[in-house]
Amino acid sequence: MKKWTIGVDVGGTEIKFGLFGDSLKEKWFIPTNVSEHGSHILPEIAETIVDKCRIFGVDITNLAGVGMGLPGPVPDGNMVRGCVNLGWSNVAAARELSELLAGAFSCQPEDIPVRAANDANVAALGEMWLGGGKSCKSLIMVTLGTGVGGGVVIDGRIYNGASGCAGEIGHIICVDEKDITGNCSCGNRGCLEQIASATGIVKYARHYLDETDIPSVLRELLREKGNISTKDVFDAGKNGDEAAEQIIDTVTKYLGRALAGISAVINPECILIGGGVSAAGEYLREKVAHHFREQAFSELKNTPVRLAVLGNEAGIFGAAYMMISERMREDSIL
Amino acid sequence: MKKWTIGVDVGGTEIKFGLFGDSLKEKWFIPTNVSEHGSHILPEIAETIVDKCRIFGVDITNLAGVGMGLPGPVPDGNMVRGCVNLGWSNVAAARELSELLAGAFSCQPEDIPVRAANDANVAALGEMWLGGGKSCKSLIMVTLGTGVGGGVVIDGRIYNGASGCAGEIGHIICVDEKDITGNCSCGNRGCLEQIASATGIVKYARHYLDETDIPSVLRELLREKGNISTKDVFDAGKNGDEAAEQIIDTVTKYLGRALAGISAVINPECILIGGGVSAAGEYLREKVAHHFREQAFSELKNTPVRLAVLGNEAGIFGAAYMMISERMREDSIL
Repeated sequence: MKKWTIGVDVGGTEIKFGLFGDSLKEKWFIPTNVSEHGSHILPEIAETIVDKCRIFGVDITNLAGVGMGLPGPVPDGNMVRGCVNLGWSNVAAARELSELLAGAFSCQPEDIPVRAANDANVAALGEMWLGGGKSCKSLIMVTLGTGVGGGVVIDGRIYNGASGCAGEIGHIICVDEKDITGNCSCGNRGCLEQIASATGIVKYARHYLDETDIPSVLRELLREKGNISTKDVFDAGKNGDEAAEQIIDTVTKYLGRALAGISAVINPECILIGGGVSAAGEYLREKVAHHFREQAFSELKNTPVRLAVLGNEAGIFGAAYMMISERMREDSIL
Repeated sequence: MKKWTIGVDVGGTEIKFGLFGDSLKEKWFIPTNVSEHGSHILPEIAETIVDKCRIFGVDITNLAGVGMGLPGPVPDGNMVRGCVNLGWSNVAAARELSELLAGAFSCQPEDIPVRAANDANVAALGEMWLGGGKSCKSLIMVTLGTGVGGGVVIDGRIYNGASGCAGEIGHIICVDEKDITGNCSCGNRGCLEQIASATGIVKYARHYLDETDIPSVLRELLREKGNISTKDVFDAGKNGDEAAEQIIDTVTKYLGRALAGISAVINPECILIGGGVSAAGEYLREKVAHHFREQAFSELKNTPVRLAVLGNEAGIFGAAYMMISERMREDSIL
């Protein structure tokens, strides 16, 4: 099997790269150039890959290929159907990058295979390979960031779904009317994202503080700073602030409910919690796991709920593993 | 490829059989003998298969195998982990049937392969093969009967999940507090099954009639018969009875919500509605599809919502197709 693989994680502000041999050998990033409808993105990815291969002495004949995570739906490993953050509409990203690299290395596109997938799905695969989901073959990862995303891994592979939208779990409607604050960005009401994203947690916290008069350090922070963050809410909760504890209990109740529903559909081996909000760590995990068990179907209550561990690097790990595992299957190692 | 395959659908009161050649050639059933912890069930299945093979001139050398749907979780194609309806705890059903058939036919168990799966999953596969999901490779089927079950097909195969519980969608919590009537049989509150099963619809209808004083033909039926059925509710709705229409609107709102959530997880090619309640036909389908679109994530709104068409025969079709498709993959036809 060829020695080297490159994992690429394309985000709206930066593009991360990892060069993998037996393990992660080098990592680097470039800023995302979204000018001119993002038309420079793939050429600049190709350019930095060529540069780094020269610098690190990676011979093209020993490069198994490139895996790439993209912030949009990718039904088929190639074509991404719209990446608002990148200024892209439909782009055959994998094929185009393969052609750009072949041009630079003076070889055929089939000599440098490229596979693309949705970034949340890629991160979930990375966590399965070397992160919180190690030893699992099927898992769901919920990413609690500005929004709520999700990745689905089934039988050791990313599951894209019929149109690349598998894992869009931020838009599961699971919030009771009394806890809904306005409409979701998608236009619906009661989506998980409305209460469990970083933005949603703050919004719900302010709503809760408005509706009650329980004393709370969060009120003081609001007066002082004019705003509070998700971290403020979790810090207050960890310090025993009653209002913060109630807020977190409600947020994790709905998160547990959504994860219980997801488990009833695909019965994964484990559930992972990642994204910026998961910095709240074991305090958050324990509460989500509790509410998951409370609301899951009897046979599913023992599904482990764990923290993702690779952080921002999950994307490059998962992207590389898409290609590594494909090659291992070809060689009947997997 | 061998000519014949047998599909078996094991239920709590009867066991259905189908003999498939190019198409369904013969079907029959036997009563389910649940005496002595269901220990006669597999021997009686073997016995009737041997009998019918003799009668229909099926030579054992030309039998590709037997597929079997069972009313319990089957993680691995063989072992069912508890079938309350059959009096079974853990039974290696596929292996045992294979050995019984080999004994009767005087051949080796590997000459008569048997594959088992959960009955709801098997029905979904049957609908994919020759029913409402024809031409789809991934689908979810919701079965609205005494309870609410579900089957998941991914890439043309049954998806069992890590412990055989994929598709337990009746226990997705999706009902708002105000519409919940008591606890679900699973102990939770607000499960889909509590409002969308045949039992649940009637229970919610009675609750609705108690809470309102809108005149309704359902009140008269309740006075006359002491009870109403799901069919009464749908018949009244089709005839423009205002209370029945409201009841059906609420039931289908939650069903649409659960199906929208499921789609956000696995993004299936299509969604099928089956089970006894689906006898309400296009009237039901149209309302579920409407509420699905209202609550689905934007990219998923166009997922087709269709009626299952094979009825009680979905199980024998799906059971046979488990084995037929396995053989086709072996022969690289699929």
